[in-house]
Amino acid sequence: MILTVTLNAALDVTYQVPALRVGHTNRPTAADVRAGGKGVNVARVLHALGHETMVTGLVGGDTGAAIRADVLLAGLREALFDMAGPSRRTVTIVSDGTATAVNEPGPAVSISDWADFVGGYHALAARASVVVLSGSLPPNLPDDAYAQLIRATPGTPVILDTAGPALLAGLAARPAVVKPNVHELTEVTGLDDPLAAARALLDRGAGAVVASLGPEGLVAVTERGSWRVRVPEELHGNPTGAGDACVAALAAGHLLDWPDRLAEAAAVSAAAVPCPLAGDIDPDTYTRLRPTTTVEALDAHADR
Amino acid sequence: MILTVTLNAALDVTYQVPALRVGHTNRPTAADVRAGGKGVNVARVLHALGHETMVTGLVGGDTGAAIRADVLLAGLREALFDMAGPSRRTVTIVSDGTATAVNEPGPAVSISDWADFVGGYHALAARASVVVLSGSLPPNLPDDAYAQLIRATPGTPVILDTAGPALLAGLAARPAVVKPNVHELTEVTGLDDPLAAARALLDRGAGAVVASLGPEGLVAVTERGSWRVRVPEELHGNPTGAGDACVAALAAGHLLDWPDRLAEAAAVSAAAVPCPLAGDIDPDTYTRLRPTTTVEALDAHADR
Repeated sequence: MILTVTLNAALDVTYQVPALRVGHTNRPTAADVRAGGKGVNVARVLHALGHETMVTGLVGGDTGAAIRADVLLAGLREALFDMAGPSRRTVTIVSDGTATAVNEPGPAVSISDWADFVGGYHALAARASVVVLSGSLPPNLPDDAYAQLIRATPGTPVILDTAGPALLAGLAARPAVVKPNVHELTEVTGLDDPLAAARALLDRGAGAVVASLGPEGLVAVTERGSWRVRVPEELHGNPTGAGDACVAALAAGHLLDWPDRLAEAAAVSAAAVPCPLAGDIDPDTYTRLRPTTTVEALDAHADR
Repeated sequence: MILTVTLNAALDVTYQVPALRVGHTNRPTAADVRAGGKGVNVARVLHALGHETMVTGLVGGDTGAAIRADVLLAGLREALFDMAGPSRRTVTIVSDGTATAVNEPGPAVSISDWADFVGGYHALAARASVVVLSGSLPPNLPDDAYAQLIRATPGTPVILDTAGPALLAGLAARPAVVKPNVHELTEVTGLDDPLAAARALLDRGAGAVVASLGPEGLVAVTERGSWRVRVPEELHGNPTGAGDACVAALAAGHLLDWPDRLAEAAAVSAAAVPCPLAGDIDPDTYTRLRPTTTVEALDAHADR
């Protein structure tokens, strides 16, 4: 079972409008409401890939009840914990291929709600083959909240997908993989070159760094070598869920060697782009791209 | 008791953002969720003015339950009817004094839900001193749905605040007052001059036409005469609820003579502009503006 953790789960509202007119009333042609937060999206992709998953995190209020109901509707197993505050909403307006989002920060988590979660997390993570920690922290949790969770189960590999201080503090607990995007890499290292920045995160404690470069594919730096991965076409659509799909494939492929694992991650990630909603992947796109995805070793001792 | 009818009630989500960045993720500095739809806003203002009100309309689903709970939280009495479909949401993003809205159309109302509502409406409207019919119709109701309601209780004065085909069809049932804004007036009559357009609506069946002209105040055309009403300052803020506040004052003042009733309506309407959320009015603004609001008779036989 792969456990995905979403501490700041959200009710994601997505509107399609023909052309967003600022300062006016817009009439959406479609409205979708679904459970979100990056860990929920990762679990959706894992489920679509045929892997057994469990969704955990903190939810509260009416929005939390709606998140829990939608997770079950999606066929996902959940062990979500109740918190006192109401779960946040995100609103995304998609028009002309552009996504404009308003993301609420989420409620503060009380000390007792956090203690209950950490206690329950130990038992869940101990049963997991891989743990995925995804997304922003609730506003009042300390930067090292993810580090606490990583240290709780030293035998279980953890993939950490977060940004800023939560990412930096998490590195000290030696997660197996971190997956920043290119903006997050630059923000935390101050380095513009993705390869140099990824090496800097490896030096700070990550077992491996897989950086998503958008249409440029992936670059990975690990203790076994470094690789650049590319898919042979540029895809159009909504790139919001591509990072979560990449993380799902990295978790699903944790027993593969690095080149195969990275090729899977790049192809599954690209297969998310044609889908309007984060958490979905297009199987036909995956099937078409997977055989032509290229993995280039960047150093002499890398496997391949 | 003044009955307000909101057939397409909504859960209104309002975000304040420092500057809306299209194509990016925006972090709101404030988020409000409250029951909305124009009739609910009218009832809030009536309640603030000290009048007994009753909120009716159709609600459904989780959003409907949240609407009902928030109506009660606001201290309003409600006789809302359940429908099968989920009530709609509206999302408004306020930044730099500009409001960008995404308004869902709302669910279709089943024939049996509509029949239940109409049956219950008869009894409620029979007990009301004034009925206010506000806002858009659910997407599948016929254009003459408001006309049906107006004809149901011929002895009760009805104020109709809607637009387009629902307004035109409603006129045939002879509502006591209609309150279009200047855009709605032009849209239904094809006339650019508000006074000429208001006269055209009077000719089509309205007992009186009170047109809101934004910062230009009101123009009213009735069987007793015509008036232009102005407040002496230009107000800044969120004009979204000003029309609903105007309707509330017209309902509250149904026993006043027209010049006093219109002066009240203009001052209460202006008092909504400084408030960030539709349905609120600022008592200090009302107290300051009311004595200096001017009512100018536009024809020789008008009262004054």
